Amino acid sequence: MQTHTTLAALRAQIRQWRREGASVGFVPTMGNLHAGHHALIDLARRHADRVVASIFVNPTQFGPNEDYARYPRTPDSDINGLAERGCDALFLPPVEQMYPYGTMACVQMHVPGITDILDGAFRPGHFNGVAQVVARLFNMVQPDLAVFGRKDYQQLQVIRYMAREMSFPVEIIPAPTLRESDGLAMSSRNQYLQGDERQTATRIHQTLLFMRDAARPGPADRRHRGRGHRTAGGGGLQRGLHRSAARRPVAAKVARRDRPAGVDRRAPGPHPPDRQPRVRRPLTRAPDFAPNGKDSEC
Amino acid sequence: MQTHTTLAALRAQIRQWRREGASVGFVPTMGNLHAGHHALIDLARRHADRVVASIFVNPTQFGPNEDYARYPRTPDSDINGLAERGCDALFLPPVEQMYPYGTMACVQMHVPGITDILDGAFRPGHFNGVAQVVARLFNMVQPDLAVFGRKDYQQLQVIRYMAREMSFPVEIIPAPTLRESDGLAMSSRNQYLQGDERQTATRIHQTLLFMRDAARPGPADRRHRGRGHRTAGGGGLQRGLHRSAARRPVAAKVARRDRPAGVDRRAPGPHPPDRQPRVRRPLTRAPDFAPNGKDSEC
Repeated sequence: MQTHTTLAALRAQIRQWRREGASVGFVPTMGNLHAGHHALIDLARRHADRVVASIFVNPTQFGPNEDYARYPRTPDSDINGLAERGCDALFLPPVEQMYPYGTMACVQMHVPGITDILDGAFRPGHFNGVAQVVARLFNMVQPDLAVFGRKDYQQLQVIRYMAREMSFPVEIIPAPTLRESDGLAMSSRNQYLQGDERQTATRIHQTLLFMRDAARPGPADRRHRGRGHRTAGGGGLQRGLHRSAARRPVAAKVARRDRPAGVDRRAPGPHPPDRQPRVRRPLTRAPDFAPNGKDSEC
Repeated sequence: MQTHTTLAALRAQIRQWRREGASVGFVPTMGNLHAGHHALIDLARRHADRVVASIFVNPTQFGPNEDYARYPRTPDSDINGLAERGCDALFLPPVEQMYPYGTMACVQMHVPGITDILDGAFRPGHFNGVAQVVARLFNMVQPDLAVFGRKDYQQLQVIRYMAREMSFPVEIIPAPTLRESDGLAMSSRNQYLQGDERQTATRIHQTLLFMRDAARPGPADRRHRGRGHRTAGGGGLQRGLHRSAARRPVAAKVARRDRPAGVDRRAPGPHPPDRQPRVRRPLTRAPDFAPNGKDSEC
């Protein structure tokens, strides 16, 4: 695996591959790689002849009181892991390469509607920072496709919106979430969890599964509401979510807010693969609730 | 010349050229083409194997009281003119192709510092709209190089800033301004001039030439100030500019404001080719005042 820290070296490598007729897949990361990232590399490999990963902890997507300085950085083990996984090239740009005039003078981007809700409401500017760095990385790598995990679901939707709305010549491929054995989504930030926070965090996934079941129509509804309640335990978060779920339909509300203000309802929606019509079908015990296959896990 | 109205058709054409090993030059326009535009095509041809022009009157760069609706649209004669000039392909996208979710829901861009001064101070949002459409066109055409006229000098600097700061893989080539025989820069909007406005407009160029001479140091200064004053006539605009020029150095002031807030002065400047050190040299009668060749005309 080649590791490049300059744009010129990266582009020379990619030009060589293009001359050979190879397609290029891209996996942007912030490093501190775990099995979830490695699965993204595998997925890119299935769709492209060559795979480029990047590691860049992007300052413009961190708020002033967030964890930019202490975000875990483990370049040596990241490089070894990527090489073992068969990644073809790693791009490790310094901040000056990504923001040549400084972060305060960078071209700012704003993806409307979708960046200010949900997680974005608690992290002002975060998703715009994500869009800014991904647009730059797309320009630098010029891949045919890029893989983004569904774990950061809102981020995935922001990237899809930007890529489609701005006609970036890059196909966005969503990847399933990898989870720990107790259901917690794999994340570099899980290591911040202290004491019983790690145990409490597992209730997020359990409660989402419960809400999924509770929000489904039909006679199975009541039965599963009871089951889910017992499974998820009695924490305050869970009780709050339970009450919302009981009122229903939360998912539909979120989906409505997801549509950016000013979008013509007749225009194609921003997230076509996730907007397939809901399929009413009997409940099953499937480990995730995807009614439409790979594109519906969140 | 092929004319494409869909992105798919345009990309198919360009893929074909790429397979043949051809480089691609790009000339974005708003149509109503005149000799100035045709010169941009010629310049693109000198640098690239194939030339794509686009015609798109971009709504997001017009203010609410500006001339979007009445901007002159002459597609038939434009197409004939481009074909005669040897342009290889024309991209004529409808608004829905450029802004698939509507202009109110488009990803917004802000190029800091340079967009809010000079012309930008009088046209809020104009240059951000220019950046938005040029970024989309770069993503659609994926050219090796793009030609922009120096006539819209601030626009050229905005595009250069964006292309470099965001690492767009596109070389920006500036083209000299073409002028009418009386010195007025060629522009589609010249046809808006009524009555004696057309005659008055010629004083802009005359006065700029005068200011150039007046701002130069040395004994020639006084002599040329007098000459310029007579040449440019006695209008209010000219007197105001004269007073500014006499106080000097206007150009240096503008150049200082040109640097975006927050830019590290040690960092590479946003407009390297135009920031070459001033050459002090005797005055000449050259038709333009470029001390450093092609990159210094404005």
